[in-house]
Amino acid sequence: MEQLQHLPGVGPKTAQRLALHILKRSEDEVKALANALMEAKQQVGYCSVCFHLSAEPVCEICRTPSRDSQTICVVADSRDVIALEKTREYRGKYHVLGGLISPMDGIGPEQLHIQPLIRRVKQQNIAEVIMAISPSVEGETTTLYVGHLLKHFTKVTRIAFGLPMGGDLEYADEVTLARALEGRRELD
Amino acid sequence: MEQLQHLPGVGPKTAQRLALHILKRSEDEVKALANALMEAKQQVGYCSVCFHLSAEPVCEICRTPSRDSQTICVVADSRDVIALEKTREYRGKYHVLGGLISPMDGIGPEQLHIQPLIRRVKQQNIAEVIMAISPSVEGETTTLYVGHLLKHFTKVTRIAFGLPMGGDLEYADEVTLARALEGRRELD
Repeated sequence: MEQLQHLPGVGPKTAQRLALHILKRSEDEVKALANALMEAKQQVGYCSVCFHLSAEPVCEICRTPSRDSQTICVVADSRDVIALEKTREYRGKYHVLGGLISPMDGIGPEQLHIQPLIRRVKQQNIAEVIMAISPSVEGETTTLYVGHLLKHFTKVTRIAFGLPMGGDLEYADEVTLARALEGRRELD
Repeated sequence: MEQLQHLPGVGPKTAQRLALHILKRSEDEVKALANALMEAKQQVGYCSVCFHLSAEPVCEICRTPSRDSQTICVVADSRDVIALEKTREYRGKYHVLGGLISPMDGIGPEQLHIQPLIRRVKQQNIAEVIMAISPSVEGETTTLYVGHLLKHFTKVTRIAFGLPMGGDLEYADEVTLARALEGRRELD
């Protein structure tokens, strides 16, 4: 129970429920879970190109030749790659920064994978870098910092902020509405 | 209690709570509430220019000369005007359609205040019409229908759809993420 409580979102009660569940299962089943955890930890590392989680030295996305290698989508975390892949809209490559610039938490640009990104952009023929980072204070700082570094070498864009789909104007917060107005586009 | 249950969001329990509360208050207090309801109903109508709720024949927004009269923001409902006013970002005028085109509910373009909008755009010197309508099926239909009618006379834009402020990429639905990617803009 003590160990389980270190997992995110697991408090004392959930830990107890999980522990009791494990005690009820057969030894083989518990071994399978324990082995899966160890194997994942031992085998999954980071892609040497884009820093996405990968069991291979270079991840599957980087290895897929049919993907547009002239576009790099920059995200904070591997979770964001997974979220964007689910849209099935994006066919370029990624670059995972491994976090956001946050002086409050002692995270500076040097702790993130920014230098490898600049090297990628300098060495390869990159047509566009899309900054796909959440609009928090840390996210804005990171987008502007990385954007300004890359602007000399390629076109840098950022994802749109505005009304979410299914969102109602009435329920949108004021900042979102202001951004939606500011970011308006001509109707095709 | 029966009458109170006709109010939106008021079920039998809330109606009972409200009714018991009213019985506890003094007759003067109840009269004040009843009069306020009647007065609101009798005095508040629609602005003859923009169809926003107004106690005067022409609403305060339409009457304010310092507001940009060359920009019209088209919304479905008076609630949207109130939401947009709260942002304090928009300084133009409005036009309230009074609903959305919805064949399923038997609401066609002729039931909405679309003709008066076209007249406004034709007769006045309008530089831009901003369609600020929620991205539902009915919203899209209405935006495209009205947009196409107005495009011959003026520039028509629509508000941005994308990640809401404070929104995390990971928690955004796939359609919102796809729209955010599609609507990306060059970093200044």
